[in-house]
Amino acid sequence: MASPPRFVEDYLLYLLARASHVASAGFHARLKERGVAVPVWRVVATLHGAERGETVGALAAACLMQQPTMTKLLDRMAEDGLVKRRREGRQTRILLTRAGERLAGDLIPEARRHEAALLARHAEAAPALKALLRGIVTPSG
Amino acid sequence: MASPPRFVEDYLLYLLARASHVASAGFHARLKERGVAVPVWRVVATLHGAERGETVGALAAACLMQQPTMTKLLDRMAEDGLVKRRREGRQTRILLTRAGERLAGDLIPEARRHEAALLARHAEAAPALKALLRGIVTPSG
Repeated sequence: MASPPRFVEDYLLYLLARASHVASAGFHARLKERGVAVPVWRVVATLHGAERGETVGALAAACLMQQPTMTKLLDRMAEDGLVKRRREGRQTRILLTRAGERLAGDLIPEARRHEAALLARHAEAAPALKALLRGIVTPSG
Repeated sequence: MASPPRFVEDYLLYLLARASHVASAGFHARLKERGVAVPVWRVVATLHGAERGETVGALAAACLMQQPTMTKLLDRMAEDGLVKRRREGRQTRILLTRAGERLAGDLIPEARRHEAALLARHAEAAPALKALLRGIVTPSG
C-alpha cells in the first residue's frame, strides 16, 4: 500500500496553514468560552507591552486584518473600555486601557500554557522552530 | 532603548499565523495573475496524487473550509471541468479530471519553486521545521 508522498504532505505553505489552524483551535475554543472574540484577543495581545501603543496600520498588519475592519473593531473596543486613542503629532496611536491590560494579564498566561502544552513534545526543537518562523515573518533585505 | 521582548514576538501561534500569511502572499499573488482562486488551488493541490480521490469532508478539512462552502466550490469546479464526482458504495469521492491534473501539473512546479526560494535561507533547518509542523498537524494519541 506504500504510495509516493503526496505533494501537500510535504509542502511548507500547506503545513504552515494547517499547523496554524490546528494549533489555534484549542485556544480559540477557550476564548469562545470566555466570550472574547479572536480579533479582540489579537489586538490585546499585540498591544500588550507596547508602551507607545501602535498605529491602526501596524495593528491591522500584525493582526492580519484590513485597515477599515481594524478601525471598526477599535471603535467597538474603545466603547468597551479596552483601548484608547492618543494623538502624537500627526499620528494617532492605540493603547490598552487599564481594563485592556487586565484582560491581557488574564489571557496571556492561558495562551502561554496552551503554547507550552503544544510544544511539550517538541521542547528541544522549539527555539529553532521559532527562529525559523521569525526568519520567514521578517524577510531580510 | 532595549525593552523586554513583547509577548507576540515570541508566541508560537502568532509566529505560525504570520509566517503562514507572509509565506503565502507571494504565491497567492502569482495565482491571482493566472486567474486561479486560492481555494481552487488548494483543492487541486490536495487532490493531486490522491488516486482514489477524497470525500468532500476530507477536502473541506484539508483546505480549512466549511463543508457547505466546499460543496459549492466543487460544483463550480465540476462545471469548469476540473473535478468529477464518483460514487463508491455509499460514498461520493472527488477526483481531478484530466484538465484538473493539467492545472495541478502547471501550478505545483511553481509552488515548489516558491517554496525553495522561501527556504533557501533555512536549507539546513527545513527538514526539522517540516517534521515539527507535521507533529503539530497530526497530534498523537
